[in-house]
Amino acid sequence: MCEVNAYLIKNGEETLIMERVYKLDLQENQVHIENLFGEQKFLSASLKEINFEKNRMVLEKTGEKS
Amino acid sequence: MCEVNAYLIKNGEETLIMERVYKLDLQENQVHIENLFGEQKFLSASLKEINFEKNRMVLEKTGEKS
Repeated sequence: MCEVNAYLIKNGEETLIMERVYKLDLQENQVHIENLFGEQKFLSASLKEINFEKNRMVLEKTGEKS
Repeated sequence: MCEVNAYLIKNGEETLIMERVYKLDLQENQVHIENLFGEQKFLSASLKEINFEKNRMVLEKTGEKS
């Protein structure tokens, strides 16, 4: 079993958005993450990097709706 | 520490291409994976899914050069 923390880069800043993610699905311009506490997130983002050694994934925001 | 096995879907078939991947980088249409044995692969592929619970990532081949 293996879990990572998910960080989102938005406007150049990195924020922790979910801890202990155990599942990640990618669609075009959309990312679905789910964690061990039953939380789910759908994000307009793309995956940039995962470092399993550091238990860390980095997502980057796409299609800003500000 | 956490490692996953990488599977590649090509022509509808899934093949194990690397075991114990600990690092994944995504560029546009390119995937770079690295494992604990120092092996590296650059693939014309996109990431489809990661299931950390099953220690499994699925990549899909893009831009066939056959």
